Amino acid sequence: MDNLYLGIDLGGTKMLAALIDEQGQIVAKNQEPTLAERGAEDVIRRLISISETLIAGGILRTGFFTIRGIGVAVAGVLEPEKGMISLATNLRWHNVQLGPILEKRFHCPVHIVNDANAAAFGEWMAGEQAGIQDMIYITVSTGIGAGIISGGRLIEGTTHSAAEFGHITIDRDGPLCACGNRGCVEMYTAGHSIARRAQASIQSGEPEAAAIAVLNGVEPEQVTAEHVAAAAKAGNQLAIRLLADAGEALGCGIVTFAHLLNPAAIVIGGSVSQCGALLFDPMLEAVRRYGIPKVVESITFAASSLGGTAGITGAALWAREQLALKQTL
Amino acid sequence: MDNLYLGIDLGGTKMLAALIDEQGQIVAKNQEPTLAERGAEDVIRRLISISETLIAGGILRTGFFTIRGIGVAVAGVLEPEKGMISLATNLRWHNVQLGPILEKRFHCPVHIVNDANAAAFGEWMAGEQAGIQDMIYITVSTGIGAGIISGGRLIEGTTHSAAEFGHITIDRDGPLCACGNRGCVEMYTAGHSIARRAQASIQSGEPEAAAIAVLNGVEPEQVTAEHVAAAAKAGNQLAIRLLADAGEALGCGIVTFAHLLNPAAIVIGGSVSQCGALLFDPMLEAVRRYGIPKVVESITFAASSLGGTAGITGAALWAREQLALKQTL
Repeated sequence: MDNLYLGIDLGGTKMLAALIDEQGQIVAKNQEPTLAERGAEDVIRRLISISETLIAGGILRTGFFTIRGIGVAVAGVLEPEKGMISLATNLRWHNVQLGPILEKRFHCPVHIVNDANAAAFGEWMAGEQAGIQDMIYITVSTGIGAGIISGGRLIEGTTHSAAEFGHITIDRDGPLCACGNRGCVEMYTAGHSIARRAQASIQSGEPEAAAIAVLNGVEPEQVTAEHVAAAAKAGNQLAIRLLADAGEALGCGIVTFAHLLNPAAIVIGGSVSQCGALLFDPMLEAVRRYGIPKVVESITFAASSLGGTAGITGAALWAREQLALKQTL
Repeated sequence: MDNLYLGIDLGGTKMLAALIDEQGQIVAKNQEPTLAERGAEDVIRRLISISETLIAGGILRTGFFTIRGIGVAVAGVLEPEKGMISLATNLRWHNVQLGPILEKRFHCPVHIVNDANAAAFGEWMAGEQAGIQDMIYITVSTGIGAGIISGGRLIEGTTHSAAEFGHITIDRDGPLCACGNRGCVEMYTAGHSIARRAQASIQSGEPEAAAIAVLNGVEPEQVTAEHVAAAAKAGNQLAIRLLADAGEALGCGIVTFAHLLNPAAIVIGGSVSQCGALLFDPMLEAVRRYGIPKVVESITFAASSLGGTAGITGAALWAREQLALKQTL
């Protein structure tokens, strides 16, 4: 009878569940829209439902197995000791004690972990950079998240809030961020910031900006970072400049990150990272220009090899890790 | 027969050696000027000499003991595996293999460690904040250094270069730093920056600036951060503003540090930190203004309790730690 783990990635848009084996390989997965507006109870009911479907299907296909642990990746303020999601704005959740509910239902330990930390742990355990002792994972999507592996361990911080890379300042006189800080990396590089800057350019009447909306067949106020990326790939000069600005700001943030953590590898994932060289070339140029050579020259930069499954993989392997830690104590 | 450790703090101005017991208490210490201009061979000869004097004196006073290990704290690029100091600009050293020399002389393992990391480790093991699992140590002196304890371990980074806190940017359009980065914390908060800004103000003819030199009885080009601190304490408004600017910049840097590492405590040492509230009040205000509340509200700020002996204490305890690690393997 095999030992498997259940990895859950509970996002604001969709929720994923996967059966993961001891090596971090996905045996089967399932997903559905989160529909957070229906409330926590409804979301949890459907989360249990897709997990049970997954387990039943797995048993039918491979025979009986044991679920040894469950890891849940979620963005927000967490109290993992209590299995508590204290605050998850994208889910509209406040003090939801998800851990005990799932423990009761699935009869195994449940571990709640920050979503970017889970993805970092997944990349570190099962991705192409697996086993590198000092690795930083950065996800650039609508927002920006990160996870730190240092000396072969996930750095969680005293209240499980480490690696808030989106909210480090690169310009203390820069625009005010929702977090209260000024000139945060997220104000320049996140998907919502790229979209906001493109929309502002359209409103100010720049012809190259209007072309971004026209090219994508959307109204100006509907322009997203993906539309900017598509326009940049089609040669739109403003779109290219917007991505270059985003990349340079990301590079400046990475210099700070690298000077503090001295990583051997930096793995970058998330939807905005799909822009490729348009984002990464200016990023790397900033890293080379501003970084201390002995620190930045030894860094291997790599694209996320697990992509959208980094979170579920990492969450499941985190549950495995916690079990192993408990057994050695 | 007791077990003791030899802690060495090899600085550009002076070198300290101390006998430290298993609990991190100083049994005896010795120091002398480094006189780096005489060359590495001469410095090492005198370093051995003050260490031997210390050991002989200790034996005479307390009876025989064993030196189980030696820790050497030094600023620069290090290769601890080889006992190598690859580059120490303040010592004018390039590829000096100090470890094997001391091992041969004292017949015990020698561990080279970054000076700020050693001080962090010392504060964490033997200072007032001892035992806090997530602690950052910052030293504000002529330059700025730092050390990170996370999850109960010293974070060294892949090439032992982590915690370069002096060289994280708070303004990417700020002045160019010698490290190649722009707007580094060190450009605003370090002793040399405070002195440079005071001297520039004097040269631009500000009367309040000239008063800083007069008050201290020095020529304008001799004004140091200590002179600025003295003038500020005497009520000089420009000096007060210079320290407030330095404190605010330090606070902005600390916000970044805290958002990435989520520490429970931040311990601050170094000569400039002696300015007290004139530096710390603006620093704390910036931390409160720009930090994510859930991250910064839980931080305990404390002055270094070991002061000038944090480095030797930490270096010695680092040697003890390495021995303990080796024994558990």
